[in-house]
Amino acid sequence: MFAADIRDFVARQGLAGAVVVNVASTEPAPADGSLPPSSLYAAAALRAGCPYVNFTPSTGLHHPALAALAESSGLPYAGRDGKTGQTLLRSVLGPMFLQRALAVRAWSGTNLLGGGDGAALADPAAAAAKNAGKERVLADTLGAAPEGEVHIDDVPALGDWKTAWDHIAFDGFLGSRMILQTIWQGCDSALAAPLVLDLARLAVRAREKGLSGPLGELGFYFKDPVGDGPSSLAEQYTELKRFADRLRDDAETHEAHR
Amino acid sequence: MFAADIRDFVARQGLAGAVVVNVASTEPAPADGSLPPSSLYAAAALRAGCPYVNFTPSTGLHHPALAALAESSGLPYAGRDGKTGQTLLRSVLGPMFLQRALAVRAWSGTNLLGGGDGAALADPAAAAAKNAGKERVLADTLGAAPEGEVHIDDVPALGDWKTAWDHIAFDGFLGSRMILQTIWQGCDSALAAPLVLDLARLAVRAREKGLSGPLGELGFYFKDPVGDGPSSLAEQYTELKRFADRLRDDAETHEAHR
Amino acid sequence: MFAADIRDFVARQGLAGAVVVNVASTEPAPADGSLPPSSLYAAAALRAGCPYVNFTPSTGLHHPALAALAESSGLPYAGRDGKTGQTLLRSVLGPMFLQRALAVRAWSGTNLLGGGDGAALADPAAAAAKNAGKERVLADTLGAAPEGEVHIDDVPALGDWKTAWDHIAFDGFLGSRMILQTIWQGCDSALAAPLVLDLARLAVRAREKGLSGPLGELGFYFKDPVGDGPSSLAEQYTELKRFADRLRDDAETHEAHR
Amino acid sequence: MFAADIRDFVARQGLAGAVVVNVASTEPAPADGSLPPSSLYAAAALRAGCPYVNFTPSTGLHHPALAALAESSGLPYAGRDGKTGQTLLRSVLGPMFLQRALAVRAWSGTNLLGGGDGAALADPAAAAAKNAGKERVLADTLGAAPEGEVHIDDVPALGDWKTAWDHIAFDGFLGSRMILQTIWQGCDSALAAPLVLDLARLAVRAREKGLSGPLGELGFYFKDPVGDGPSSLAEQYTELKRFADRLRDDAETHEAHR
Repeated sequence: MFAADIRDFVARQGLAGAVVVNVASTEPAPADGSLPPSSLYAAAALRAGCPYVNFTPSTGLHHPALAALAESSGLPYAGRDGKTGQTLLRSVLGPMFLQRALAVRAWSGTNLLGGGDGAALADPAAAAAKNAGKERVLADTLGAAPEGEVHIDDVPALGDWKTAWDHIAFDGFLGSRMILQTIWQGCDSALAAPLVLDLARLAVRAREKGLSGPLGELGFYFKDPVGDGPSSLAEQYTELKRFADRLRDDAETHEAHR
Repeated sequence: MFAADIRDFVARQGLAGAVVVNVASTEPAPADGSLPPSSLYAAAALRAGCPYVNFTPSTGLHHPALAALAESSGLPYAGRDGKTGQTLLRSVLGPMFLQRALAVRAWSGTNLLGGGDGAALADPAAAAAKNAGKERVLADTLGAAPEGEVHIDDVPALGDWKTAWDHIAFDGFLGSRMILQTIWQGCDSALAAPLVLDLARLAVRAREKGLSGPLGELGFYFKDPVGDGPSSLAEQYTELKRFADRLRDDAETHEAHR
Repeated sequence: MFAADIRDFVARQGLAGAVVVNVASTEPAPADGSLPPSSLYAAAALRAGCPYVNFTPSTGLHHPALAALAESSGLPYAGRDGKTGQTLLRSVLGPMFLQRALAVRAWSGTNLLGGGDGAALADPAAAAAKNAGKERVLADTLGAAPEGEVHIDDVPALGDWKTAWDHIAFDGFLGSRMILQTIWQGCDSALAAPLVLDLARLAVRAREKGLSGPLGELGFYFKDPVGDGPSSLAEQYTELKRFADRLRDDAETHEAHR
Repeated sequence: MFAADIRDFVARQGLAGAVVVNVASTEPAPADGSLPPSSLYAAAALRAGCPYVNFTPSTGLHHPALAALAESSGLPYAGRDGKTGQTLLRSVLGPMFLQRALAVRAWSGTNLLGGGDGAALADPAAAAAKNAGKERVLADTLGAAPEGEVHIDDVPALGDWKTAWDHIAFDGFLGSRMILQTIWQGCDSALAAPLVLDLARLAVRAREKGLSGPLGELGFYFKDPVGDGPSSLAEQYTELKRFADRLRDDAETHEAHR
């Protein structure tokens, strides 16, 4: 039914095609095997012949019941969970500590945000889904998860503005204790919008080039990327540029063939 | 005379050789063409047959009058200005903003430190030499130097501990203004020590392998590296690992030849 | 039984008397009417003829079942919950906003601490008891509790050092939004020790002067003071000085009578 | 001539009177004995029969050559240098450290601001005039000026928004070193406007009541108040409320006399 809605939309608007991007509020991790709403929409996207991008930590295609469909659809997909603020920072700071052999002992964080996102994440189950992605970035870039918690507070007075404080305790030579703190004051929707535009274009282009399955080359955009690419932002950027070149080269090849 | 001192030292201690690392307090940029003390010591190192590493922003070998000596010595050298704290951070944050197309409008910083380093940098000429390196990192990683100043305050009460506050104003989608602030509380000597050990070992090894001239592959360690390598820490790290592999491979080849 | 222990201690040590100060880890708020350990010790102190000071948020004498004993004992007592760090700051910043008619919209805070205190407060019930005092200070100084939460995280890597981050969103003229953030890095035991010494001396002196019941004049030291004194630190300090003068004047009067 | 302009203005507008408030950009401290522009305007205000308020650190009436005029004018005046942001904070934090016997070892600060104010304060002479007031507040509230500098940077990209970072190193029990940092993000004009309105009303009312000379009771508003009132904000507020009551009571007395 969702799939029919998408096909109707494409037909009514006279479009060549569509790409489905999930930017809805984070949903709680689903109980046992049931399919959450984000998965129903993801399946509909593929059934309607659309590439799919999951910009949230919600389940989407990340569910065993959808593995066969994802495989047989012949469509490209990407996700999960856009890396816009605190986690973006973590994905460059984590590698810095590792490369300098500075042992991170504790990494703690608090996020304050209002707007719909704050209210959605005031639900502990939704926050748990969100935090899993944040922690994965640390564990992946540092080799192991350090001590420390992440809080997400709904503070309606802040509206769409988010403040993220991070406190990192690390040890230098001979165990000397040092501290780095970061304070990020950003607007998530303004940070997400250009990434969503990029992703929509890249997904469409990937489909045009006949690519299918998980687009692991897009890890630059995500907290918990599909595939098994690198976790440091710098390496993800190198991979993204290589991928973009490939999509472009293909294009030139293609045009030469006409 | 300095060169004779170094040769005597090596002889008296029965050493196979030595490497000279400048970790003295920053000296003011030299007036016109005169050779400052750091350059006299650097020249002495080469004359005594020692690889030379300049861990400070002082002139060292970076002087036209020493170009011929540096070339003819057949020795490797590296520098300038160890990247331990605030600039280390800048070398990972700068590329992040660039890769995400977040336009940095202003990058301001204040450093508080006591100890001998704080006192030396209370001299405006020494501070100017130090700040030139910090600003170069931003200009190199961002493409152009943003607005903003850097202050270095001598605060004896802080002893060997340094606090660096950075305030970065950047613009996101549709010009939305956002702010990142970082507070780094570190001990410069504990941060510098392992880098100095690395550099001494790498310089000795480079000499054993017959390398000479500027070791551009060591940009990972410096604010203002010799040669023209990349300015982002992640790319510098990749280059360093490749260089280390080369030094190791050479070793194996060498041993195979015995 | 506890009371006998205290009397024995005084007798064995040949002391003129003792004062009992509760500096044990915070206990969870007690279920219904049962007497928690802190109350059993508080009652024992009074039965042993000792002034009592509760430096923690635990119940202590703050229990209906102990009201009659507190009254009949003829002894002075003080509490609750020493104001050492984040709340100390709040008790001077809150009045500042109020006096300048700057409307506080949200006040959020995160505390990171290791040591025994961090472990004790990782228990949500103990943290709830602790946070109640922190929030009371804001509600009392601002007139109403603003939006915002307080987190207490156990971060063993920090040992006895505590870091408290506060984020305050307030509105100025014509609703212009402004932000104050504070970062407090302190050692709770070093902050508490001199307050505990003060309190022990003041409580003994109060008893010598024949004072009994709640010492409301000691609000300077507490998050949730007995009695109904002022909540701004400045006014509490004025009251404390007046009280100290009174204790001293009494002394002089007394000596004059000899 | 300025005085005639003011009298003309009052006459043309049909006003009962006027009050002159200096909110112009900070001027450099004047060389030797010459009268700077702010003093010429201040003198004109008194000659035109207007109460005068100096909301800036500029000289205004604070000049020996104007002492006789100030005395003979029979008019009330107030100043200097509105206390809106960083110094407001310092005037509540300073007393807190003093009252808790926490020895402040160093107090360092950096202010980033754009707009006209930033440009004016990029002039070192103007900045020196501004900083003198900030340092006086610390010296007055702490008893002695601690180590540390204050920087004021012109950062045009920040527009009318100001960010002030303060770093305070203090010692607790047995010399344990602790740190407080504050970050104030405010809009100076929105902070100043209501204070200016208050001051204009209070000055007019003071004149109606026949008060003349320096209004020392208005120290609540200023970094460097005329007269010799208290320096802690809390005491200044108490004094302000008492003064406001006096102005109100006088009014009632006055009306009763009609």
